Amino acid sequence: MILPISRCLLQIFVLTTLECQESAALTLFSTGLGLAPLNLAAGPEHAEFLEPFLSGEGSPLASLVFSEPGGVANALERGGKGFQTTARREGDEWVINGEKMWATNCAGWDFRGCELACVVYRDITTPLEERQDPKDKVMIILVTRGDLDRNGEGAFEVVRHVATPGHTSVSGPHVRYTNVRVPAKNVLCLPGKGAEVVFGAFDGSAVLVGATGVGLMRAAFDAAIAFAKRDDRGGVVPLLERQAFADLLSGVKMQTEAAMALTWKAAHAMENGPGEYDARRELALGAKVFGSEAAVKACMDVINAVGITAYELDQPFSDLLNTAVVLPIFDGGNVGIRRRHLQQLMLSPTYDAWAATYGPSQE
Amino acid sequence: MILPISRCLLQIFVLTTLECQESAALTLFSTGLGLAPLNLAAGPEHAEFLEPFLSGEGSPLASLVFSEPGGVANALERGGKGFQTTARREGDEWVINGEKMWATNCAGWDFRGCELACVVYRDITTPLEERQDPKDKVMIILVTRGDLDRNGEGAFEVVRHVATPGHTSVSGPHVRYTNVRVPAKNVLCLPGKGAEVVFGAFDGSAVLVGATGVGLMRAAFDAAIAFAKRDDRGGVVPLLERQAFADLLSGVKMQTEAAMALTWKAAHAMENGPGEYDARRELALGAKVFGSEAAVKACMDVINAVGITAYELDQPFSDLLNTAVVLPIFDGGNVGIRRRHLQQLMLSPTYDAWAATYGPSQE
Amino acid sequence: MILPISRCLLQIFVLTTLECQESAALTLFSTGLGLAPLNLAAGPEHAEFLEPFLSGEGSPLASLVFSEPGGVANALERGGKGFQTTARREGDEWVINGEKMWATNCAGWDFRGCELACVVYRDITTPLEERQDPKDKVMIILVTRGDLDRNGEGAFEVVRHVATPGHTSVSGPHVRYTNVRVPAKNVLCLPGKGAEVVFGAFDGSAVLVGATGVGLMRAAFDAAIAFAKRDDRGGVVPLLERQAFADLLSGVKMQTEAAMALTWKAAHAMENGPGEYDARRELALGAKVFGSEAAVKACMDVINAVGITAYELDQPFSDLLNTAVVLPIFDGGNVGIRRRHLQQLMLSPTYDAWAATYGPSQE
Amino acid sequence: MILPISRCLLQIFVLTTLECQESAALTLFSTGLGLAPLNLAAGPEHAEFLEPFLSGEGSPLASLVFSEPGGVANALERGGKGFQTTARREGDEWVINGEKMWATNCAGWDFRGCELACVVYRDITTPLEERQDPKDKVMIILVTRGDLDRNGEGAFEVVRHVATPGHTSVSGPHVRYTNVRVPAKNVLCLPGKGAEVVFGAFDGSAVLVGATGVGLMRAAFDAAIAFAKRDDRGGVVPLLERQAFADLLSGVKMQTEAAMALTWKAAHAMENGPGEYDARRELALGAKVFGSEAAVKACMDVINAVGITAYELDQPFSDLLNTAVVLPIFDGGNVGIRRRHLQQLMLSPTYDAWAATYGPSQE
Repeated sequence: MILPISRCLLQIFVLTTLECQESAALTLFSTGLGLAPLNLAAGPEHAEFLEPFLSGEGSPLASLVFSEPGGVANALERGGKGFQTTARREGDEWVINGEKMWATNCAGWDFRGCELACVVYRDITTPLEERQDPKDKVMIILVTRGDLDRNGEGAFEVVRHVATPGHTSVSGPHVRYTNVRVPAKNVLCLPGKGAEVVFGAFDGSAVLVGATGVGLMRAAFDAAIAFAKRDDRGGVVPLLERQAFADLLSGVKMQTEAAMALTWKAAHAMENGPGEYDARRELALGAKVFGSEAAVKACMDVINAVGITAYELDQPFSDLLNTAVVLPIFDGGNVGIRRRHLQQLMLSPTYDAWAATYGPSQE
Repeated sequence: MILPISRCLLQIFVLTTLECQESAALTLFSTGLGLAPLNLAAGPEHAEFLEPFLSGEGSPLASLVFSEPGGVANALERGGKGFQTTARREGDEWVINGEKMWATNCAGWDFRGCELACVVYRDITTPLEERQDPKDKVMIILVTRGDLDRNGEGAFEVVRHVATPGHTSVSGPHVRYTNVRVPAKNVLCLPGKGAEVVFGAFDGSAVLVGATGVGLMRAAFDAAIAFAKRDDRGGVVPLLERQAFADLLSGVKMQTEAAMALTWKAAHAMENGPGEYDARRELALGAKVFGSEAAVKACMDVINAVGITAYELDQPFSDLLNTAVVLPIFDGGNVGIRRRHLQQLMLSPTYDAWAATYGPSQE
Repeated sequence: MILPISRCLLQIFVLTTLECQESAALTLFSTGLGLAPLNLAAGPEHAEFLEPFLSGEGSPLASLVFSEPGGVANALERGGKGFQTTARREGDEWVINGEKMWATNCAGWDFRGCELACVVYRDITTPLEERQDPKDKVMIILVTRGDLDRNGEGAFEVVRHVATPGHTSVSGPHVRYTNVRVPAKNVLCLPGKGAEVVFGAFDGSAVLVGATGVGLMRAAFDAAIAFAKRDDRGGVVPLLERQAFADLLSGVKMQTEAAMALTWKAAHAMENGPGEYDARRELALGAKVFGSEAAVKACMDVINAVGITAYELDQPFSDLLNTAVVLPIFDGGNVGIRRRHLQQLMLSPTYDAWAATYGPSQE
Repeated sequence: MILPISRCLLQIFVLTTLECQESAALTLFSTGLGLAPLNLAAGPEHAEFLEPFLSGEGSPLASLVFSEPGGVANALERGGKGFQTTARREGDEWVINGEKMWATNCAGWDFRGCELACVVYRDITTPLEERQDPKDKVMIILVTRGDLDRNGEGAFEVVRHVATPGHTSVSGPHVRYTNVRVPAKNVLCLPGKGAEVVFGAFDGSAVLVGATGVGLMRAAFDAAIAFAKRDDRGGVVPLLERQAFADLLSGVKMQTEAAMALTWKAAHAMENGPGEYDARRELALGAKVFGSEAAVKACMDVINAVGITAYELDQPFSDLLNTAVVLPIFDGGNVGIRRRHLQQLMLSPTYDAWAATYGPSQE
């Protein structure tokens, strides 16, 4: 069920990014990410949670509540600390405590909670056994706005809004859960399943981040070439006649085309194959890492080409840069998370490098 | 007619490259390039020239005889020198004089000429007029092995074989034409048409160079990951467990995937659109520049990952590098020719940046 | 006289940059740049203009008023438009008209003018002759606060403050001169000398921009390594134990060391040689281009290493990036101006590549 | 005692490299490296071993015999395999067994051994205890040609010459020691000291590799600019007038200047400080990594600028590339060894980032 959604989002995302409405795009995108775990793991018993999103009424927000103030990149390694947001089973309820951060939409439109949060946490009902990894304790529970309201004042709090250099209309604040009680029926993933589902959700979002990078690069290129055709910096020809300028632009263009082709292939392969899931997942991760890093470089190249005019806030360029800067570090930072996943894929004994293109190899 | 051929070649090329048979691949590829001008410009009257290649007998070679010892990157600019290989119309014949170099296959299997050479030259029958560009004098003539034989000893000579660090089984020698007389019916392109056709031929080959880059990157990646899984440099884990090694490899992998996706898209767009020819051509040029530069970088990244073992000639890595090094500089050097074409495309008043993806823009 | 000043500034600059007081540093630096033309061209008759800066009283600001709203990178090429700020000699006065932009300090502390402005303009007293370049008309005149006050309301206006993503406490607004009359004795450079002096002033500032880059890189490194030693993202070891993180940091470190060594060598060579001026100038330009581009890359590398935490405005990283971004594009943009100067140096028939290291070559 | 030698070598090396005599330079350099452990660890009792090198007669070669066929990058980590070349104390002798590779000069002029080899090996007289690292067993012993001769036929064998794409006149073959008996007085470093001394020797050589990189870059730049001034590829101006060409060249130039300044500073700091040894060592490692990687990039940039002509073996460019390619991977590969040392330095609790510039920090 995930991929039709991601396909829609892809279109919306590229379009909106094109108009530099990155924050609107990210808000939409994050609702998609917030629903992704349901696409991967929900059974008929979870149908009620999707209702607000299918009713066509209101503007419900969903959120995948994953990251924490101290970071989680290494939290699930053997010996790691695991998630610091925990829950304990008490009777027919789970009692959630802990702090989260960077989860877009998690506080909803009014900072009192979104319609549906997929909260990722560590089960502390029983202690971690020696033979277990921290990831064996990862669970996902669905926390609705109704649940938060029922828990009353102080159960869910926004600790602070996080000021950032870009995406300034998006909200992913530092929040705190204090003894939030949620019915056991809200559990989406039991221990042993939660980590897989949350990473699966991020596999889907990886493609969308690649698409965001493409959108930003496209906006940067379009703005720069328009400038280069009308501006001459006092000389006898438009700037685009200068090789040094043109080579920066054509470099951005071909990086954009490469990232776009890779993102499309990844989106197509995730839905249609060929290859096992891991081979297709490698493309998705590649689209995220390649597209995000290319976007930052493209923004800088364009700034260097345009020159000092690009430093004006009236121009789109510094906004584009500050918007792009987050792509390599959010939605699973490239260095700490996404490249680690790529490494794990390559280390797998069943790694089949080109299967997402040619199908499983015969050997 | 060009694109089915290029599609076949694409498959052959990727396959053969995969087996590190780059020289065989390049020989095949260059026959395709040698025939490309016919695909673009031949009429029924040129059918006889294709016969050897359709007969299924022998191993005929074709060659696009374009480059010259002093280079041609700037020869066609206003005021430039034009091609140094010239021909003069005398009665029913053209008399060709001059030197060429780097034209793969041009000397055939025995250094006495290939079955079919598309020779690009400057018409000196009448002098260049002031209002003309050097490109207004560019012609293409078909010179067969039979023509060369008929001209006798000394008319076509191999001045020297050019020793190169890679592609050592390919022949693109420095050759000289001395008063080679060819019937006027062999003319493929009259002045005013030759430049367009030769650049059109290179647009097609651009995609194939992108594919070559992909093939080399794939070979480099496959060799490096095999090494990384079996070798530990004396340590407790395979090299691939080391982040520094893995990040070089995953970087190569995603560059390869991006170049492959871009090359495929370019090949598809050249045949199927959407967009005007120039928009599709931009993708082809991008595949050449991006793929060729990525291939060199990939070879170096892999060498740096593998370490000193990669410096052994017994290993494939230095061969791959020396094979890849030529990709950015042959078939129209990126700096002097390909990026200049990209600049010209961008400068066009009808430039439509994203038409090869979304179709012509409405504005 | 220029270089002792630049040496002092170098120290001040590096120190202040280290404390992230980039705006204070830039204000100081720009006063040095504003005085630099006097160091290069002033005679005894200009002594009065320096007095406010030697008196030790007040906080006088100087400014080199050079850039213009439409840019000047190509304005001095043959056929170019020349400076759009002009002046005409009328009796014992020059009458200045035109708009300037990006000249730090030019509007002084109160937006009514700084103590001393070296205004670069085009002499329109007589028309440009065919045999002349636009640069043959470039002049520099000293405009004091007293001159502006005497010209009365409306003669010097701040058209707008330019909002920028970094250096937010620095002022380099868009200003307009309307019939500003200045005594002829204020002329610092007559036509034929102005361009050389203004570029000479920017040669000196090039080294200081290199130093700024070093300061920013140092600040970025220090902040990142402190983070990497205290943070573990939930894992069992500090982040610095991860190769992927450490390699980004050691890369930044060595780039910083290289930029610092180059900047020092350039500063030393500018004062002490060996080599002709052009050879030493090449080092200064190199320090600017290399140091500025390395600084931007270092900020991004550090952001990628730190991850999402770097996107908080509370952290220094996005400020550092937005401060660094201007280095390649101000003080003579690298693409449009600085690299063009490097190209001109290389093209000179007397180019002597290694003279600033080994002294003039013997050949 | 090490640094005056390294200073001499530095001069020789740069000079010879300049003339493209890289193999001669490397042979000299490697004798310096072979003597370096004596500079660091020799007492009066080792004076006899230096005699052949001080006599001024003959052409004695020394060699630091360190690397092994399976690599040693991770051999000394806890749990690692340690050196595979071992020795056992038997009475007044050590009995050496095992294979080495890549040790320049180790086989001497006649493949029967050099005048003096500093052989690094693992002491297997007693087994490794649990509390020990493999590096606690590392020893260095001096093996003279006389020792090898005395051991007779078959004790020291050249298994194979290693064919490489560059440095083709240098010899660093795969060799084998079989029960080579050497007097105990030849021991230079007892266990617990060997690893420190061998890494100290490589700290010195790191600077020289930086210098080699500089020499190669200089040669590449000089050849390319000469080409760019005389060649026009058929156009109306020399290639150097083209911005795309010039920007590649000026980029190479400033990288060369930066690497040269860093290498000089590192060489100076290693001898004169300021800062503790580790701070100075960081500069030396930085010079190696930065200079080696810049050299490879410079060779490729120059090849891309020159275009297809650079692919001729008659031109210096592909030789320069194939010579440069080894710099990042020999003398301690950057990825597996040098950057790991940089990481260890940064991880040290006493790490003082800028002490080699400003002296120890006060905090």
